[in-house]
Amino acid sequence: MNVPERLPVELGERSYDILVGEGLLALAGRHIAEVAGRRKVMIVTDETLAELHLASLQRSLESEGIAFEAFVVPAGEATKSFSHLEKLCERLLQAGVERKTPLIALGGGVVGDLTGFASAILLRGTPFIQIPTTLLAQVDSSVGGKTGINTAQGKNLVGSFHQPRLVLADTEVLTSLSRRELLAGYAEAVKYGLIDDPAFFTWLEGHGRRLIAGDPAARSHAILTSCASKARIVAADEREGGVRALLNLGHTFGHALEAECRYDGDLLHGEAVAIGMVLAFELSAQLGLCPAEDADRVRRHLAAVGLPTSFERLAQRSWTPEVLLEHMRKDKKVADGRMTLVLARGIGQAFLTQEVREEDILQLLAEEISQTAVIQS
Amino acid sequence: MNVPERLPVELGERSYDILVGEGLLALAGRHIAEVAGRRKVMIVTDETLAELHLASLQRSLESEGIAFEAFVVPAGEATKSFSHLEKLCERLLQAGVERKTPLIALGGGVVGDLTGFASAILLRGTPFIQIPTTLLAQVDSSVGGKTGINTAQGKNLVGSFHQPRLVLADTEVLTSLSRRELLAGYAEAVKYGLIDDPAFFTWLEGHGRRLIAGDPAARSHAILTSCASKARIVAADEREGGVRALLNLGHTFGHALEAECRYDGDLLHGEAVAIGMVLAFELSAQLGLCPAEDADRVRRHLAAVGLPTSFERLAQRSWTPEVLLEHMRKDKKVADGRMTLVLARGIGQAFLTQEVREEDILQLLAEEISQTAVIQS
Repeated sequence: MNVPERLPVELGERSYDILVGEGLLALAGRHIAEVAGRRKVMIVTDETLAELHLASLQRSLESEGIAFEAFVVPAGEATKSFSHLEKLCERLLQAGVERKTPLIALGGGVVGDLTGFASAILLRGTPFIQIPTTLLAQVDSSVGGKTGINTAQGKNLVGSFHQPRLVLADTEVLTSLSRRELLAGYAEAVKYGLIDDPAFFTWLEGHGRRLIAGDPAARSHAILTSCASKARIVAADEREGGVRALLNLGHTFGHALEAECRYDGDLLHGEAVAIGMVLAFELSAQLGLCPAEDADRVRRHLAAVGLPTSFERLAQRSWTPEVLLEHMRKDKKVADGRMTLVLARGIGQAFLTQEVREEDILQLLAEEISQTAVIQS
Repeated sequence: MNVPERLPVELGERSYDILVGEGLLALAGRHIAEVAGRRKVMIVTDETLAELHLASLQRSLESEGIAFEAFVVPAGEATKSFSHLEKLCERLLQAGVERKTPLIALGGGVVGDLTGFASAILLRGTPFIQIPTTLLAQVDSSVGGKTGINTAQGKNLVGSFHQPRLVLADTEVLTSLSRRELLAGYAEAVKYGLIDDPAFFTWLEGHGRRLIAGDPAARSHAILTSCASKARIVAADEREGGVRALLNLGHTFGHALEAECRYDGDLLHGEAVAIGMVLAFELSAQLGLCPAEDADRVRRHLAAVGLPTSFERLAQRSWTPEVLLEHMRKDKKVADGRMTLVLARGIGQAFLTQEVREEDILQLLAEEISQTAVIQS
């Protein structure tokens, strides 16, 4: 394989590197030994990924003389729960996890979030290594240190900030993703263009289809650009006191849609974020904050690659603006009872606001819902 | 009341104050408002303490115009579990906890550890305020930021470092403790003398009985001295990479005893630590590291105030050295399979070592067990 690209994430004594390249998994052992020595590691993965990629990871660990034990959790969002967290912690403790035992998450967001959280709280903190296997996890979960589980009250409401020691993003493993999963990850890459990098958004308009079709160089570029963009924002605000909230562009709307779908698989996280970003730009345009053509450009590009941009796909559900707003109110990004939204003054010009009136949100949601009804009828 | 004494704990941006004084609970609202403003707070306490002290705390919050909601958990070590953690998190989320909502732990170690951990992981971190109601919690849990729960594999194996914003140690609430609980806390105070403060140990030899009998000035002095001592050690090593492990004096032995008793109430944590400290000094003396008279002095003082110093009280159990050693091996303080023990070169001269041979530990345990049998026969 080619030499992987290395992106340093600067967080003082919690700094680490993200490596991006084709075929990295086969060299994982070497890179893991660099940061964690050759002590025994514990790998957490899900049933699907165990079948696809575990053997390759194990071979590369063996070739470096690194002992390992693998723990397989069920695939799917339901695994991000207290009960699976408890089971995983008990299994790892039983296997003799120590404070310096590296925990490796081989998987997408679910495996990464659950394993990262277990790593944060086991013995009050163990070294964490991420090998993200979805585009979503590579562009999004590789940076930021957010780990966590869902609760009955909503997504990611319980968790820790826990920085990894190393992230290995192998573009080759993405070939095993379905087109739908790939697109869901692509939506998060688009987000980085929309927040503060209009040139990257323009690049995605030009190269997005090639990336989705499988071009490894395009994938590497998008992953590195997204991670670098996120790393900049996180470095400025590691614990999410301020600008980091920009990363939630599309997420407050998106989480409300996901909550209403009860995370049942009808709507992937990235799909919800795609619709959420369209709504955030639509609302910005309607409030006169952002040119209407920018909102149109966002919707057009997401639709062009095949992402959902409206409630259409979910039309068999009966949405009401009030219920969605209620979900938005429950979002973590509420302070003193006021909702913080990420809106935009244009592509690459996202900003935070607590000034949006709830009636404006309700009106936007009502319009979106009624348009869907028209399409359906 | 008198003006409370204020001990600043210096941890950079995580610095906070410990206030110690008689009748502090009645002024809690004012001190909480100083660090957290007058936003709504959530109080976690247990059934016993709710009856004894909740009304007083509520009155003081009301008098400052601070809204609150109280959550009562069952008393006892079994509450430090994943299932109670989950229940508490769900209840707090349902009640609308936000990122800036202060969580107040009104209770002993169990309430403090559980609430602190919930505070660490809810929304990835909320402000935490401790009102410790036992001597053990006041001298020990007030400093260090350790929070956590127990698992099937052992005590405190899952948790977070989460520093409080404020600690209020009211010596008046200690009057509701049983003598046994008070003594269990006293053992941890003795520990600070044994680690690095021989003058404090000598002071305890002179004033210990008065303190236990209820003298508020003696209590304040012991709490402040213990907290200051712990704060010094923690400031030097917040995440427990090195010297902080000195705080585990007596704890590796103690945890093994507790684990063998299955935390069933036969042996309080402080009692286990008292026996553990005696064993640590005994082992140090037997290995020729520490004068035998220092080990005797430790045993004598603990026995004089009424703490257990041998396996005698537990004689109806059938102990085996091998089983106890196995528990010690499972302790968190194991790195690369090697046990780190805290031994001493004398009173106030504790040090860390990985050099102790397991056969020496087994021999010591065998002697202690056989002496108990002699006493019993």
